[in-house]
Amino acid sequence: MNARLNAHADAPASLDGLLRPRAIALVGATERSRWSNGAFANLGELGYAGQVHVVNPRGGHIHGLRAAASCRAIGEPVDAALLMVPAHAIEDAFGDLHEAGIANAVILTSGFAETGEDGARRQAALAGLARQHQVNLLGPNCLGLINYIDRIALWTIGLPTRLTGNVALISQSGATASYIADHAGRQGVGLSYIVSTGNEADLSVARLVDYMVDDEATRVICLFLETTRDTATLAAAARRALAAGKPVVALKIGTSPVTAKAAQAHTGSLVGDDRVFDAACRQLGIIRVHSIDDLVATAALLSRLRPRGGANVAAIAISGGICEIAADRAEASGLALPELSVRSRDALDEVMPSFGTPHNPLDLTGAAILDPALFARSIKVLDQDPDIGLIACLYDLPTEPRHGYSQQVIQQVGQAFSAASTPGVLLSIAPRPVPDFSRMLAEHHGLVYLGVGLDRGVAAIAQAQWWARQHPLSPQPSRTALPAGEDVQRPRSERETLDFLVTQGVPVVPARMATDPVQAQGHAASFNGPVVLKIASPDIAHKSDVGGVCLDVAVEEAADAYQQVRHAVASARPDARIDGVLVSPMRRHGIELLVGVVRDPQWGPTLAVGLGGVWVELFKDSSLRLLPVGAEDVLAMLGELRCSALLDGYRGGPVVDRRWLAEVIARIGDAALALGPDLASLEVNPLLASGGRIEALDGLVVWNTPVEPAQ
Amino acid sequence: MNARLNAHADAPASLDGLLRPRAIALVGATERSRWSNGAFANLGELGYAGQVHVVNPRGGHIHGLRAAASCRAIGEPVDAALLMVPAHAIEDAFGDLHEAGIANAVILTSGFAETGEDGARRQAALAGLARQHQVNLLGPNCLGLINYIDRIALWTIGLPTRLTGNVALISQSGATASYIADHAGRQGVGLSYIVSTGNEADLSVARLVDYMVDDEATRVICLFLETTRDTATLAAAARRALAAGKPVVALKIGTSPVTAKAAQAHTGSLVGDDRVFDAACRQLGIIRVHSIDDLVATAALLSRLRPRGGANVAAIAISGGICEIAADRAEASGLALPELSVRSRDALDEVMPSFGTPHNPLDLTGAAILDPALFARSIKVLDQDPDIGLIACLYDLPTEPRHGYSQQVIQQVGQAFSAASTPGVLLSIAPRPVPDFSRMLAEHHGLVYLGVGLDRGVAAIAQAQWWARQHPLSPQPSRTALPAGEDVQRPRSERETLDFLVTQGVPVVPARMATDPVQAQGHAASFNGPVVLKIASPDIAHKSDVGGVCLDVAVEEAADAYQQVRHAVASARPDARIDGVLVSPMRRHGIELLVGVVRDPQWGPTLAVGLGGVWVELFKDSSLRLLPVGAEDVLAMLGELRCSALLDGYRGGPVVDRRWLAEVIARIGDAALALGPDLASLEVNPLLASGGRIEALDGLVVWNTPVEPAQ
Repeated sequence: MNARLNAHADAPASLDGLLRPRAIALVGATERSRWSNGAFANLGELGYAGQVHVVNPRGGHIHGLRAAASCRAIGEPVDAALLMVPAHAIEDAFGDLHEAGIANAVILTSGFAETGEDGARRQAALAGLARQHQVNLLGPNCLGLINYIDRIALWTIGLPTRLTGNVALISQSGATASYIADHAGRQGVGLSYIVSTGNEADLSVARLVDYMVDDEATRVICLFLETTRDTATLAAAARRALAAGKPVVALKIGTSPVTAKAAQAHTGSLVGDDRVFDAACRQLGIIRVHSIDDLVATAALLSRLRPRGGANVAAIAISGGICEIAADRAEASGLALPELSVRSRDALDEVMPSFGTPHNPLDLTGAAILDPALFARSIKVLDQDPDIGLIACLYDLPTEPRHGYSQQVIQQVGQAFSAASTPGVLLSIAPRPVPDFSRMLAEHHGLVYLGVGLDRGVAAIAQAQWWARQHPLSPQPSRTALPAGEDVQRPRSERETLDFLVTQGVPVVPARMATDPVQAQGHAASFNGPVVLKIASPDIAHKSDVGGVCLDVAVEEAADAYQQVRHAVASARPDARIDGVLVSPMRRHGIELLVGVVRDPQWGPTLAVGLGGVWVELFKDSSLRLLPVGAEDVLAMLGELRCSALLDGYRGGPVVDRRWLAEVIARIGDAALALGPDLASLEVNPLLASGGRIEALDGLVVWNTPVEPAQ
Repeated sequence: MNARLNAHADAPASLDGLLRPRAIALVGATERSRWSNGAFANLGELGYAGQVHVVNPRGGHIHGLRAAASCRAIGEPVDAALLMVPAHAIEDAFGDLHEAGIANAVILTSGFAETGEDGARRQAALAGLARQHQVNLLGPNCLGLINYIDRIALWTIGLPTRLTGNVALISQSGATASYIADHAGRQGVGLSYIVSTGNEADLSVARLVDYMVDDEATRVICLFLETTRDTATLAAAARRALAAGKPVVALKIGTSPVTAKAAQAHTGSLVGDDRVFDAACRQLGIIRVHSIDDLVATAALLSRLRPRGGANVAAIAISGGICEIAADRAEASGLALPELSVRSRDALDEVMPSFGTPHNPLDLTGAAILDPALFARSIKVLDQDPDIGLIACLYDLPTEPRHGYSQQVIQQVGQAFSAASTPGVLLSIAPRPVPDFSRMLAEHHGLVYLGVGLDRGVAAIAQAQWWARQHPLSPQPSRTALPAGEDVQRPRSERETLDFLVTQGVPVVPARMATDPVQAQGHAASFNGPVVLKIASPDIAHKSDVGGVCLDVAVEEAADAYQQVRHAVASARPDARIDGVLVSPMRRHGIELLVGVVRDPQWGPTLAVGLGGVWVELFKDSSLRLLPVGAEDVLAMLGELRCSALLDGYRGGPVVDRRWLAEVIARIGDAALALGPDLASLEVNPLLASGGRIEALDGLVVWNTPVEPAQ
């Protein structure tokens, strides 16, 4: 038992007792169970220095230890218990834990929420037990945890790796965690923790991320997610991690349809769970990856190297072909490899006199085979270039002791990188393992080495550079949420929605209510030009479908148009309550945008912005952010649209004032938040933009619990 | 010397003498050269069974052999020479080869076209020497070749792999070939040949592909390309390979700007070298990949397994997380993993009773850890599903002899795959090496195993399935090129271009020439509605810029418009020859397409089709094919457009007759071919389509060698 294990003696509510227990109990231990044997063997293999107790109601000797009949019979303080009991015995086991004062439990047992409704009920009961007995519960349906730093395992299958390091791996799937850890180990990437959270009846990935932000041994936090729970905790933890300079890398799989409620609005089709998660990652500085390969490559890089935000990357290889593959892969990953400065090019010309203009990536050519010192000399030049923030050298480390030439290169590169102030990384050409020999060779020469191959390595560098650019940003949301007004009157109709938007500072096209033809004509005359007439009814959501809209009406035709609209609606929807007919000026020129807010079941209110018509309908060209957002965020969203250039005037089209447009959209986002938690969606479609005139032409609100029937 | 080496005795013009020489000469051999020592050592390492001669003007003993002073002094037939002489001695060496009757030479020497214009001249002289002396020349600036089947190396650096197999690797970069081969070896993928073609003064990758199509030992042909030369040979060889069922997998890097000439036309900006190569690959059934990892993964799969075209893929794993990663990666690779049939689901329910509805990918769950026979039983069910053409099992093979459970799984999977008629493949979860132990284990159990990880493995399966769908297609172009008419009058102006298109069966908007205002008004009246007036001049390409176009002119305004156009042009371009003013009906409704043919410097006439306006200008939304194409090909091109749905009526827009549109576009392609090899580009912009009315509204031809000045 070491000092670190004692450090949390006065903080029992934290997760220290679960992740760094001084004493543990294997409950349900028996030598006839492979799980029990596995758990005990793993403790021995890691060399756990704390106290191990075995618990079995039958007593006797198990795994060479005298078994206690129950936890309370142990008679000594125990921090965490690994429950290996059948489902029906879990309730009693919790009572036993409570009496023994054990505050942390790991439950491997499956057959809960993952099996359907009955299982979900059993799981809810389990969560209730945990709360009742004030036990932190990991699981059920998980594989447990391994703490490599303090040599602790509550883990029943074989240890996937033995390599200790600074990467914490938190996974909803135990088997996948095992595969990831195994691959990390083969790549020479050591772990601080593996935590398998399973069904997350109590402890979620989010809670574990929060813990790892403060864990001194952990430098990178890797996640495998099948779903997201407790997004508020996750968001807060991710922001803390970013502020602390601790990268979070997430591999998340699966997509789920949005709720039927949100899908009622047009925006719904744009907002898939997966795109919202993408937006959340961008906003929170979480690096998102899509394969085990990329997860390990990115973690490997960031566990060893701290990139500088905003600086360029330079690459070096001894083959033109490899340089060109690297350039192509960089482009595909969105990583810029800009040309070198004139000064660097001139300096490189002196180093390699006969090889023409040096480029980035820099081809040292076969000359470096005859003279390995070319590596060091060119790295020295690149290090002196203030624009370059990372130097990547493409070269394979040997995996066993027998490469004479390689040794020279490694020595040259190692010395040059060690002397340089610019961070450097050595990347293998193709994926290859990093066994102990390679790893120790790299360490000996002070080299950061990735064996993942240049394809994944370049992608990892691109991710790290992105992360470094997020890092100095404010870790707080750029605008705090406005208080959700409980006193806000719920807008029911288009008119009420637009009226509400006006109160929130959103410019809205003028509209006047007419209740007879003469009034309609008067309103049209007051607008001094062609107008639009629309039926106003709280019962009619889709006005065009019932003949309730008349476009481009001249002043002298406004009275007739009024009659036409009233008759059409009276015939199609005789039941509908009619407030009158709204008369608005006809807007011809401008760019139509769609601005929608949808409540994501996991992440809450999410803003989608796109250009109207074909762009969102056929191309799904939209940008997403979690709310709240400020105008600066919306400017970035507009820049992400593929059709962004249309806002700057196209073929004589209008040039839009982007700053004002962004401000208006941010206000629509705030307006949605002000409508409170029962809002399912708020959509402005179109928001018409032309120069500095930005106007909402139509608006629609959908509530989760409608107070009155709507069409 | 074996029988196979003798087989080509009567076919000296083929490449057999180069790739399977019975006797070789190392010219310029000396024990002071690492190249010479390396070449000799490699022959020994492979166990070359033919005759080795060393040549050095100083004679003596080199590498333990008596040196001949020259090739002609050898006095015995020699098939191939490895020239290791300085650049200035090459000319004499060729004379010596000629006198000695040696028909094949490998030249490693660098300092030719890769260094600039002087080098290019030296290389041209070298090519002339080769032709003059009727020598097949590999190089210069290459690394030589290795024939693993017949144990022959004309290769000076270390052998990158020793594993013999059925994958031929042909590369313009020797160093990159070496990295690829090394990675292939680590993945347990054996090679038949490595050929490094270097600068290709004589023998190109295309010639080597052609050779490998007929090579019995080669089943997959892998290429690394920095550029494409001799595309006609490459295309013909690729078609033969497809017909022979021998996949060609190409990793090509770099992009080059199109010729300035072609870029004059609008289409130029759409046709980058790289996109043309993509189109060529699609048309020729070449699998294109973008990284060494993918090249090796795809070759590994196709070297061992022949996929069935058109059939579905089913996947199996023992972790839900892994199943979901596989599903995500399949979607990203464009590989469908469709749901299983009801019959298969029912049958699987019997195999795995308590695990709910079976899906694809199929999660065997932890139950398979307790009962490895679940693998075999589920494979058996999937094998009986006639819709399934490939079964992928996600599982890691051990790399050393110590996994008890793995052995059981491998036995189960091996037996099930061997008994199945559906092809099966075992994929590792993450990238891991395939050392001899794993490779032999797989072979012993009759398993096709890839260690590239599921990300690359799934991508390789997607590529293989694509290839299998191409394979049964006609290996010939769907339309043979029309004879390029030398007697075709060169269209100079818009009018002449449109007139020419009419002769080729392309519908063109009516147009009548007016040479005075009254005539203009008469033409307008004959079209019975608003018209367009355009200046007609062979000297003016961009009519709008000089006020030469007047749109939407009413009949009664036509005379005035005529005057306006003439005055504007007379003022802007007083020098221009004027044929008159063309009067055409104004077309309001319809979808504008851009149809362009550009001569790619490597691949020749290439057709680009896109929707006009914002689609091609902002989105670069276009589809490319090498000419000739038939209407069926164009239908496929239209389907590839991201805005394809616009052709089917959008927001009240016209529904276009796709078949007729495709036929018209194919005729434009034929028209371009009919204009012969001096055509730089032909562009129809717009081609207006509305229902069954498809009309060229404007056309422009650019020639490589203009016969008269144009604006």
